Amino acid sequence: MGMDYQSINPDLLRQFKSIVGEAYVLTEADDLEKYSHDETEDLVYYPQVVAKPQTTEQVAALLKLCNENHIPVTPRGAGTGLSGGALPVNQGLVIAMERFNKIINIDEDNLQATVEPGVITEVFMDAVAEKGLLYPVDPASKGSCFIGGNVSHGSGGPRVVKYGTIREYVLNLQVVLANGDVIWTGANTLKYASGYNLTQLMIGSEGTLGIVTAIVVKLIPQPKYTALMLASFETNELACGAVSAIFKAGVIPSTLEFMERKGIEWVIKFDGLAFDLKDNIQAFLLIEVDGNNQDVILENCEQINTVLETFECKDVLFADTTDQKEALWKIRRTMPVSVKSNSVYKEEDTVVPRAALPQLIKGIKEIGGRYGFESVCYGHAGDGNLHVNIIKGDMSDADWNTKLKDGIREIFELTVSLGGTLSGEHGIGLVQKDYMQIKYTDVHFALWRGIKNTFDPNGILNPGKIF
Amino acid sequence: MGMDYQSINPDLLRQFKSIVGEAYVLTEADDLEKYSHDETEDLVYYPQVVAKPQTTEQVAALLKLCNENHIPVTPRGAGTGLSGGALPVNQGLVIAMERFNKIINIDEDNLQATVEPGVITEVFMDAVAEKGLLYPVDPASKGSCFIGGNVSHGSGGPRVVKYGTIREYVLNLQVVLANGDVIWTGANTLKYASGYNLTQLMIGSEGTLGIVTAIVVKLIPQPKYTALMLASFETNELACGAVSAIFKAGVIPSTLEFMERKGIEWVIKFDGLAFDLKDNIQAFLLIEVDGNNQDVILENCEQINTVLETFECKDVLFADTTDQKEALWKIRRTMPVSVKSNSVYKEEDTVVPRAALPQLIKGIKEIGGRYGFESVCYGHAGDGNLHVNIIKGDMSDADWNTKLKDGIREIFELTVSLGGTLSGEHGIGLVQKDYMQIKYTDVHFALWRGIKNTFDPNGILNPGKIF
Repeated sequence: MGMDYQSINPDLLRQFKSIVGEAYVLTEADDLEKYSHDETEDLVYYPQVVAKPQTTEQVAALLKLCNENHIPVTPRGAGTGLSGGALPVNQGLVIAMERFNKIINIDEDNLQATVEPGVITEVFMDAVAEKGLLYPVDPASKGSCFIGGNVSHGSGGPRVVKYGTIREYVLNLQVVLANGDVIWTGANTLKYASGYNLTQLMIGSEGTLGIVTAIVVKLIPQPKYTALMLASFETNELACGAVSAIFKAGVIPSTLEFMERKGIEWVIKFDGLAFDLKDNIQAFLLIEVDGNNQDVILENCEQINTVLETFECKDVLFADTTDQKEALWKIRRTMPVSVKSNSVYKEEDTVVPRAALPQLIKGIKEIGGRYGFESVCYGHAGDGNLHVNIIKGDMSDADWNTKLKDGIREIFELTVSLGGTLSGEHGIGLVQKDYMQIKYTDVHFALWRGIKNTFDPNGILNPGKIF
Repeated sequence: MGMDYQSINPDLLRQFKSIVGEAYVLTEADDLEKYSHDETEDLVYYPQVVAKPQTTEQVAALLKLCNENHIPVTPRGAGTGLSGGALPVNQGLVIAMERFNKIINIDEDNLQATVEPGVITEVFMDAVAEKGLLYPVDPASKGSCFIGGNVSHGSGGPRVVKYGTIREYVLNLQVVLANGDVIWTGANTLKYASGYNLTQLMIGSEGTLGIVTAIVVKLIPQPKYTALMLASFETNELACGAVSAIFKAGVIPSTLEFMERKGIEWVIKFDGLAFDLKDNIQAFLLIEVDGNNQDVILENCEQINTVLETFECKDVLFADTTDQKEALWKIRRTMPVSVKSNSVYKEEDTVVPRAALPQLIKGIKEIGGRYGFESVCYGHAGDGNLHVNIIKGDMSDADWNTKLKDGIREIFELTVSLGGTLSGEHGIGLVQKDYMQIKYTDVHFALWRGIKNTFDPNGILNPGKIF
């Protein structure tokens, strides 16, 4: 794959402008600033040029030109990524998909929708909800992220435990390849056994194989009711043991989130949460059940309660009203913001088989003890997906800048030794790629490179990411 | 990709025997007969040699040798395939996976199991059911097919409508590549955002990219109760309209099967089914609801009934007892056997967005009228997946052997024009591959070939299949 990238010369710039219109090509530093970072800590990489196409044909024309001229291209959604996937590390052209913001159709007969990649996830969820339908893939950033970015990262969110990731909802993708060719990857069908599944290959490929310009997703009926409870435990082991046991009791909650004590402490300290945090409490589970029948939901809550008691649950806060539910959800939603706004931090996205969560957390604390960092852990316990926020705290700048990498490496080594992998939903992007060799062998890298080379022989698409 | 395949010489045969043991290498015509066909109509291709390895290391050693010597290799599960995927069309070596028949573990804490590919699907389902767990991917051949074959074909079955295909249950695969390298494709986790998803790429690749030697699957809690009903309609349009409306009413049935009148006629005629088939009835839906609460199941049945009435449903047979349920299921399960045992036939596996089913069936009958063939249609209406059994009937041998292909082509052209694709769950294999160009372009073929070439540069794995 060619690393002999060229810069964008005035002639190419003129051609970009003639393709998308002068108003939609940015070259001034002030205009480029927004595209020089995403939400991954404090990394900054300016592109040379940003183009904002509106049609598949424009994307195809841009890519054809860039491919012929060896211009690196970084596709960009809303820039809410947490792994640096949208950073133009080789300069070149950023293709910003923000004008692909139309919901093309919601097909109520087939329970499908076709949507452009620049639609904000929550806008799409609300549009289908108006028709009584559910699109359940709601990452924490649903109010600002694009559904195209969700496809690129194989996104999840709190409801994966019942509803699955975006991988289980995308039926078909329109994709522009590096050379400007346009394909639909599959068919608008719920089943597909017709050759290698290019749809599934594109999901999670982080903009390195093509640029998605339309997305066909499956929808499901909207459940009518939810119940929400917050359970507290004396140890992580007890909390995580309860997680497995809830499933074994035959209940599939719609959310099963873990929060460690330290997370709640941050929300109390920095957001003034009024919460009676008992000394003996170490771990919390936030559990939601949804459905169409209030009696069954109550029955499920009782079943869950019985399980929680078996695991010596100390207290269950049950949200009766919408306001009470919102208050409990707010604790979980505030936690990342509270941690990130009040510290120098790095966020890692680990995932293990769910019963291994206590070992993972214990190991992370032990590693932190040796390296001198604190961590705040929370995440999607039902999926074994733990977000680890590493806090600089009292760590010296020198240690933070040099030794921390070794500590993170140890966290990922532990994750892999527990049967897990580096990322459950944030992707590898730029910041995790140095750790990929902890889990993957030269054979994996050779297969990935072969796939990359098939789709993008000149290596122009989002270079420097994943591997 | 090399088409300069070699035949297996005495020296190689000796090496095969030293790898897997003399008793597990077959070369006599009588022994090879079983491996010369699958359940795809009447095709016969004898391999030169069959080897039956028992370990991943043995598979790796066999593949390494075959790769170095350009011996075509056809992996084989239970031989229940309906698209000719297991037929050794270039002779060479068949690697029969029947000795990979162990359930390695059922992990009740993580609701996962690790299973070898030669385990019969129903044997595995029963083993997890004993622990109160459900593995819901139950193709019609579940009593004889292997779970490894299910992975290779991306299999489905009647419960996909609620539970999804095998694609949503496989977490990780151990795979031997063409050159003998062994990898795990991913991690034993419910989420995965760590590079191109090789697990999903392997699923449905029909043995052309590697040989699976271990499978990690997700399990879910076993629902306690089911209800089953058979609804009859005057037209296909009304039956299929009801399918969409059931979902819109907020109910997700665990099965939603369509059967056309002609299918029931065959079961009455050839299996002595006692059924009062009214003259005005054209289409049937077999609807199952499952869950843990009898009241909710009853409520769901009532909701479904209300929908059915809106679509002028003429009659609903409700199964009260286990025997009655079995009797209704038997109609659906007998249908394929009844058709296939009593006629010269070809089965095609079409899939469209579900609301397009009436147009598909209508078009198939019209095409049959022009070409002189009858057809019996049934399938997974909730998924838009229709199995089309084309019956020779009064068609002349000449027309059957020459003109029929054009008729089948027209069926697939119609399927594609309705937004569908060639196969929902049977795969492309040998018998559908000539039709792939109806839907896919040179760009798709180039991507598929590039992927194939990355995994299997000498083209030894299951040559002549898919494309």
